[in-house]
This record gives sequence, C-alpha cells and structure tokens, in this order.
Amino acid sequence: MYEDTGSMGPTITIAEYFFHRLKQLDVFTVFGLPGEFNAPLIDKLYETRGLRWAGNTNELNAAYAADGYARLKGLGCVVSTFGVGELSAINGIAGSYAEHVGLLHVVGMPPTSAQTRQLLLHHTLGNGDYTVFHRMSTEVSCYSAVIIDTELCTQEVDECIRRAYVFQRPVYMGIPVNLVDMPVDYDKLNEPLDLSVPPNETSKENEVVEQILSHFYKATNPVIVADACVTRHRIEAETQELCQRTKFPLFVTPMGKGSVDEGLPQFGGVFTGSISSPSVREVVDFADCLIVVGCMLSDFETTSFHFNYRAKELVLLYPTLVKFKHATYPDINIKPLLHSLLSHLRDEQLNYQWQPRPQMVIPKLELPRTHPLRQEWVWNQISQWFMEGDIIITETGTSAFGINQTHFPPHTLGISQALWGSVGYSLGACLGAAMAVDEKSKRHRVILFVGDGAFQLTAQELSTMIRWGLTPYIFIMNNQGYSVDRFLHSNASYYDIQQWNYSILPAIFGAKDYESRKIITVGDFQDMVKDLNFSIGDRIRILEIMLPPMDVPQALREKWIQEEKKDQERRASVESVKRLKLGP
Amino acid sequence: MYEDTGSMGPTITIAEYFFHRLKQLDVFTVFGLPGEFNAPLIDKLYETRGLRWAGNTNELNAAYAADGYARLKGLGCVVSTFGVGELSAINGIAGSYAEHVGLLHVVGMPPTSAQTRQLLLHHTLGNGDYTVFHRMSTEVSCYSAVIIDTELCTQEVDECIRRAYVFQRPVYMGIPVNLVDMPVDYDKLNEPLDLSVPPNETSKENEVVEQILSHFYKATNPVIVADACVTRHRIEAETQELCQRTKFPLFVTPMGKGSVDEGLPQFGGVFTGSISSPSVREVVDFADCLIVVGCMLSDFETTSFHFNYRAKELVLLYPTLVKFKHATYPDINIKPLLHSLLSHLRDEQLNYQWQPRPQMVIPKLELPRTHPLRQEWVWNQISQWFMEGDIIITETGTSAFGINQTHFPPHTLGISQALWGSVGYSLGACLGAAMAVDEKSKRHRVILFVGDGAFQLTAQELSTMIRWGLTPYIFIMNNQGYSVDRFLHSNASYYDIQQWNYSILPAIFGAKDYESRKIITVGDFQDMVKDLNFSIGDRIRILEIMLPPMDVPQALREKWIQEEKKDQERRASVESVKRLKLGP
Repeated sequence: MYEDTGSMGPTITIAEYFFHRLKQLDVFTVFGLPGEFNAPLIDKLYETRGLRWAGNTNELNAAYAADGYARLKGLGCVVSTFGVGELSAINGIAGSYAEHVGLLHVVGMPPTSAQTRQLLLHHTLGNGDYTVFHRMSTEVSCYSAVIIDTELCTQEVDECIRRAYVFQRPVYMGIPVNLVDMPVDYDKLNEPLDLSVPPNETSKENEVVEQILSHFYKATNPVIVADACVTRHRIEAETQELCQRTKFPLFVTPMGKGSVDEGLPQFGGVFTGSISSPSVREVVDFADCLIVVGCMLSDFETTSFHFNYRAKELVLLYPTLVKFKHATYPDINIKPLLHSLLSHLRDEQLNYQWQPRPQMVIPKLELPRTHPLRQEWVWNQISQWFMEGDIIITETGTSAFGINQTHFPPHTLGISQALWGSVGYSLGACLGAAMAVDEKSKRHRVILFVGDGAFQLTAQELSTMIRWGLTPYIFIMNNQGYSVDRFLHSNASYYDIQQWNYSILPAIFGAKDYESRKIITVGDFQDMVKDLNFSIGDRIRILEIMLPPMDVPQALREKWIQEEKKDQERRASVESVKRLKLGP
Repeated sequence: MYEDTGSMGPTITIAEYFFHRLKQLDVFTVFGLPGEFNAPLIDKLYETRGLRWAGNTNELNAAYAADGYARLKGLGCVVSTFGVGELSAINGIAGSYAEHVGLLHVVGMPPTSAQTRQLLLHHTLGNGDYTVFHRMSTEVSCYSAVIIDTELCTQEVDECIRRAYVFQRPVYMGIPVNLVDMPVDYDKLNEPLDLSVPPNETSKENEVVEQILSHFYKATNPVIVADACVTRHRIEAETQELCQRTKFPLFVTPMGKGSVDEGLPQFGGVFTGSISSPSVREVVDFADCLIVVGCMLSDFETTSFHFNYRAKELVLLYPTLVKFKHATYPDINIKPLLHSLLSHLRDEQLNYQWQPRPQMVIPKLELPRTHPLRQEWVWNQISQWFMEGDIIITETGTSAFGINQTHFPPHTLGISQALWGSVGYSLGACLGAAMAVDEKSKRHRVILFVGDGAFQLTAQELSTMIRWGLTPYIFIMNNQGYSVDRFLHSNASYYDIQQWNYSILPAIFGAKDYESRKIITVGDFQDMVKDLNFSIGDRIRILEIMLPPMDVPQALREKWIQEEKKDQERRASVESVKRLKLGP
C-alpha cells in the first residue's frame, strides 16, 4: 500500500490519501458507478481496507444515496465519471446543496494531456471545453477543486473534505485519471483534519446574544421551533439544552421532525404554517417571541409563506446568518452562537411561567377490519409501531404530510427533502441510510414511506439494497399515481401511472430472503403491525399499502383549500393581463 | 380553444400556440413528467388535438426518449419542471448538444411574482436565485429564452423552435406557470416558420468549393467517409448524390452507419480508425484525398485519435465549419455548401478510375447448435435477420463495437451515442424511436441492442413502452456486467452487477402481450431468427442473449491492444512524476 523510499519516509498515492481521510471521518461506504475516467480511482478504494464501493444502478440514485448516508454520518461521498456521470448526478447534488447536506462529489476526469490538447474525447461536448461541467457544478457546490498540483494536492483534498463537513454543503473535487497515483507523504495522514466550525467575531456575536436574551427575558408567550438544520449542523444537544432550560413550548417543522426529543414535556407537535392543527396554531400564532433554530424554511413546510409573523419578536437562526424581524446579521455560525447564548443565559431571569400544554394528540379513528384503508387512519395507526432509534424516511408526496401526524419515539431520525423536493429521492436516500446502519450493528430499523409514483423514478435502486442484503421496510403507498398533484392541481390523466406488480420486484432483482405484503384492508394492516416477527428488521420488506387515488392526509386537504384561493388569484391576474392586451 | 374578441380576431394561449407549432413540424409526441410548475402547460397539451403526452418514468429517461424521437423526426420536445426536473434531464440534454440533436427543453417555471420577490420556494436552492438552472442549461444549449413578454412571446417561441430545428442542438425554453394562458393572435399560426438553413457568404463558399473540387479532380485514390451529422443535418440526399457521381470509395463511421445506402457499389464498410478491418484501412490509409462529410469525430469512433492522416489531402465538412489539413473556414453551413459543390462539380473532370473494390465481407463462423453463444458469432448472424427500414439502436458497450460488423439493408436508420456515450441512453432512445414509428403506420421495426449493465440504469422506461403498447425488440446482451470496461481496464469486481430476472420484467410492468426468450445456445439463436412469427414486430420482446463476461467483439479486442500501449505510456508518465517529486 505504501513504499519506503528511504530519504523521505513512506509515500502513499493521493487517491489512497483521500480514502484514508474518509475513513478517519467514519465514512466507510462510497457510492457511484464506474467509468473509464474514474476506474483507477475506484481501484485505490478497493485497496483501502475497511472501505466499500456501493455500486449503484445509476448516478442520480447514487447521489441520493450519498445524501441519505450523509444525513446519518455528517458526510457522504459519491464518485462519478466525467460529463455523463457527473451530470446524471447533478440533481442529487443540487438537493444536497439546497438542504445543507455535507457531500463530496468526486469526479474522475480525462487525463491532463487530453485536456491540454483539447482533444475531442468521448464524454465531452465535442468542443474541446474540459471545464464546462466543473463550471456547472460550482452553481450547486460550496467549494470546488481539481486535484492536479503535486505539491499542494493533500492540502486541496483536506480543504475539500473540511468544507463539505463543516459547512454541510456539496464540494466538487475533480481528479484527472492519470494523477490518482501521485505520491504523497504518508505521514500527512497523521496531521488531524481541522473540522471545527470557525468562531464568530466576538462583538457581533455578543450583540446578537444580548438581543436574543433580552427578548427571552421579557417574553411571556415564547415559542421555540426546531427546523432542518438542527440535525444537519449538529446542534441537537444545544437545542435540547435550550429547550430544557427555558422550558419554552417547542415545535418542529416537517423537516425538523426527529431533531428534538418529542418526549420533552413542552413538545407540541409539528408546525406547518397555516395548515398546522388548531392547537399548534393557537400557541405559535400568539407568541410574543418566536425563535426558529436551524432555519431552512421553504414554502412546502410553511405552506407557501403563510408563516405567521404575528409573533411580536421573531428570531431566525440560520446556519450562518441571524435574522430579527427586519435586521440581518450575516456571517454568524450557529453552533458557536448557541454555545455563547447558553453560557450567557440566566435561567432565573426568564419571565415565562411554565404551564403544562396539551400534548400532541393523535386522534383515534375507528374503522372496521374489512374497511379499505384510508390515509388518515394509516398515519394515525403507524405511530404505535415506531420504535426508539428508527430512521424514518418520507418521500415528498402524501407521506410528507401524513408523517406529521405521527409521534416519533426518542432518538428517531427523520429524513425528508421538503425544500428541494425531488421526486424519487427517498428510495435512494433509504439505500444510503441503510448502508450507514449496516456498517454498525444494524440496531436501527430503516423505514421508508414512498408513493407508487415516486417509487418508479428510482426503482432499480432496490436492486442495490438486495445486493448488499440490507433490510429496510419499504412502504409503497399505492394510490395509482401522483395524488398530491391530483389533489392540488386537478385529476388530470397525466398523474396516472402504469400499474406495476411491486410485490414480485425483490425476486426479479435477485432477493432470496424478503417479504412482500399487499395491505388492502384495515384488518390486513392491523395483522401486519401486531405480528411481532414483522417488527424485527431482519429482511427487506415491500409493503404495498393500497389507498384510493383521491384520498389524502388531512393536512393536505387544508393545503388544497389554501391553494384554491391562490389559484383564483392567479386566474384573476391572467384576466388582467388579457384585459391589458386586448384593451377595454 | 380560442375565442373571438371582436376587434382583434380570435386568440389562443401562448401554450397552445407552442403546441400547434410543434404539430406543424410533425412533432406529435411530447416527453416528460408533470410537476407543480408545468402542469398548466401540460393541460394545454391535452387540449391540443393530435398531440400526446408520453408520461415517462423519470426525466433523464424522458430526455433520452426525446433525443431518440428527434433522430427520426428532426425535432423532439421534453417538458420538465423547474429545478429538480430540469436538472434530472440535463445529462440527456448535454448528450443532444454533443451529438447534434434538435431538442426543445421546455421548463415550467415558478410564477413571476415568486421570482420577483425571491421567495424561498421549493425546488429552489433556498437562496432566492431563480436564474441558476437556466444559467447551467445555457452551457448545453445553442439558445435559450424565458417566455415572459406579452408582445414578443410568439416571436420568442418561433425562434426557439427554429434554432433547435435548423442548428440541431438543444434549446432551453422556460415558461413561468402563471403565463401559459397569455393570449396571442391565432392568425400568427398561419405565418410559416422559417426553417431554412441560412445561406453562406458567397465568396467564402466559392473559395471552399473551388478548393475541394481541385482536390477531387486531381485525386487518384480518393475516399468519402460519412459521419453522424449526415443524418442529423439532413444531407443524406446530397451525400448520396456526391457518392454516386464521383464513384469514390465510401465508408461510414460507427455513428454514420445507416446514413448512406450500404448497397452502393463503392460502399466498403465501417471506418473505425486504427481498429478498422485491414481491407478498410488499406483503402483509407492510402487515400490521396479524404473527405469526411457531416463530421462529428470522437475518440470512440476513431480509436483515440489514431485517425490516419496519411491521406495527402484531408477535407472535413462539419455542420458549420470546414477544415482542410491546417486551415479552418468558420461559419459555413454544410447543406448549402454541398448544394454548391454538387452544382459546380464537373463529373467528366474527375481523374479517379472506378475500380470494383472488395465488398464489405461478413466472415462466416460456424458453431455447433449446442455451443454457447459468442459475441463474434452473434453479430455475424444478426445481419441476415435485419430488414429494410429497420431502426437499429445500439448502446455504448459491446454492442457499439459488434454492430459495425453487420450489414444494414437499405433505409436502415442507426442510432447510437458514441461521442457523449451516456450509459443507459439507448433504452430511452428506443422508447422515443418507437413512439415516432407508432405515430405512423408502424411499418418500421425498432430493434435495440443493450448490455445488461446499461439496461439497469434506465430499466423502468420499459414500463412506458408497455403502457403505450409499443413493440420494440430489446436484445439484452447479458454478460453479467460492464464487459467493455472489464476488457479495457481490468476484471475488477466493481464491473459486476446484480443479476436480474429480465424475462419477467414485462409482466411486472403490466404487459399483457409480450414475448421473452432466454437465448443460451447457438441453436436457440438459430431457432429464434428462423421463426417467421418472430420477425413480425407485433409485440414487445425481451431477448436475453447469454454471453460470457470476458467475450467481446473482435473490434474491441483490437482496441484493447491499443489501450494497453497507452496504459504503459501512462504508467511511464506517473513514474516520471514520482521521480520528479522524490528526486533521483
């Protein structure tokens, strides 16, 4: 693996150096597909003991998988080949960018000689431009580098890893195929990577902390909302401490679900803007101080910007930015800010009088055993089947609405992609999460809820799960198409999809040990969740949950009512354009 | 569909205007997936009689399908949704750009109001930047526009269509979701689209024609090579006339295969650079005047630039550029150039003495009926089964090499993606080609050769074929992974793939009328091609051709020998870097 050259100490290739760095960060699985320009790089991965190559079925799926993996491990890596491979992956990379996921996108590039001579190589646009794909990727990366400098290559590799990990965004790292063997000093691996979040400018941080605390101390109806970046920027502990010490009522956004302990006495459920349940809205709408920790607000989770700003004082803590109602403080890293906030917080100065709040209530809906399934009923029942430590992945569809009605046991991790919302993401992410779990003792169950429409986009990744003997639960919510869109837009036939025989798919993809169930009635569902063997995640399972095409969770119904209003406004605006054009 | 407003004559929406323009160009099928920001646009498609919405399973597959469709019809259209949809498609678009395919990529964008206010909408990067995806797409488009101007929108739409069609490259056309209903004059549809190729500057064109003719007249060993852009830029007739009048020996590149009549007396087979068969090399290498018509040379077809330039005079006719050995004439459109060349050509001044050349010979390899299949044998046999008018699609894999050993009957169209070489392309392209054939009388058979590895990347598109009752032949060359790479790089385990039960896939995807065959022996294959019913393309067929993992067509073997040489050079170069770094 390395050789002693006498005068200089042992050396290692730059490719091996990179893979050893990944191992140091507990990244043991690398996703992607082989191609001519990355094969020598993958060879080096195979030579690095303790790493494994997932071998995905296509690059977009690989990027989704690396994203799901990174949401558990803090960092993921996908390797693609120049041009065709990297562009196939780019939508997944963009999702990681939008949603703050630390991802290394490593691209095997043509040899430097071909680049210099602008040869009309395959996987190029045929115009001799070897930088175009790199340029495109910079739009969805926080940093990028091509590893070509023999002297600085270890620094560049380290910087790529550091940025992806610390800023939780994708980094693009290109390596020309002829340079993977560049020798570097083995000893450099002993210099630890600096993965600390840069501290904030003290006077700015103090000003912000002072402001927040003054609002905290005054508030009589304060509220904390935990959003997606709590998990992504690893501030779960700080957020938990803030909640416990202040005792402020606590809510999560849909993407923040799973980031705080839902067993905390002040936990009140999921805040989804104007479609939140009345008991949630009652508290949040009338807050005199609302702090959102780990902000990644999108219209999907806040129902098209109807985020209620009636709160007298609003504090938004983004990963690197703080917003008060009208003021913005740029370049503030959230982790050190929270540390400072907690160290300056004087609990005894808080004015808020703790009062028990109604806990998040899961309404019981009784249906006879022979009754066909209904979304509302399924989502209310499934909570009881969840266990501590579950990893629960939901697709952007009816599942993303339904999951908000469930209760997460402690140490549950929720994975969804509500801001970027790329349909089909969840099956790839499920593979990534299951691979991360598989590296350890497999103590966690990995549970996916995906619509039949979304499942079809990335279906072949089921094959990779089977290949590795992974054991996720895949609930296919079969409503014969895209029900969210049917519900929000129209019952147009383009939302229908071809009906597949999902239950046989594992066998087609080579599964030996699997379980398929088609769940049609309430009784089928009850039998399934009561079956103790079913609760043990020891094999891959396809659970086809049969639902009516126009049946949706309650929250989606609420959203529809609001979309209808918007639609009327849109129509009115088009009418006014027409009038403008046609004259009176 | 349109309304009479009295003073101004009838109006139509801009979306309907666009779809009617497509119809005028015989584009009757539109590919893509629905999303929130393009649904109102697709509604208008449904209201346009005679158009159909393919409804693909994911956007990359949709882009591949539109590309395959465009290779038959001159223009294809894929509709995606903002951000997630368009980026999923972008690798397909880049392929169309590299390979000169006329494609309209229509993107449904968020409402202008959200863009203006920079809202943190879903399917955005969460930074209020609504232009980033458009920017990325301009890198792989010859033109782009966002349709927002109420006065100029018909002009913009026309310009988008015109450029895609005339220049045979992708055009990006965004439409904000709130503007699809913009009213435009119905009468504008009666103004014909100007789809003529712009004429060349006369003096420049004359100079080039004069040069070419002087070489033609002198040449005693001239050669014509037809490349991919002959088909793409619709110069088949001009090329055919040039061949017939000059009687020069004629060859095709792999991507040019199918662009000329292989029954012409001077046709000599496929020129693949240094791995061409000896009889081909003998003629091409010693040409004193070599003209390549419709150039799109890539390393794949010319074997890594070992294109033999021993030809005394070399004339390269690109779509908009002419190259002599060292001179370049930019901005010359190939179609008018060929017209001028043919009108100035004086056949009697040609010096070349026609001599019958050995026809392309398909070597006969005899194997007993019980023998397992071999690539070399299969490719040599399959020619006899091809029929006039077949559309033959080959994946970038062993098939791309094997197909060059076959003989195409007249009016055969070959589809491959040798320059861009995106694995998985061919299944999508097969859908597109089959849709184009389906629009007519289904007279053509659509025949796909795809490796098992490549098939897995886009497998779900088989479902769309079944949904539409299409009847392609899908030959899955099953060698348990990526054999080209195994052969050229190493027998690494990352080239292995999960084994699927391909024969049952049509049933899983809902097929009622289909045929699956697993072809293991020579006898199986002989029985299949002799079966007259099998030759009628009346149902979808999956033909799994079982081949040994390390068995490849002869041409690939030749390539391997040459790659080996390159590899040795590469290793030598790394050694020299090491020496540079480590010192003597």
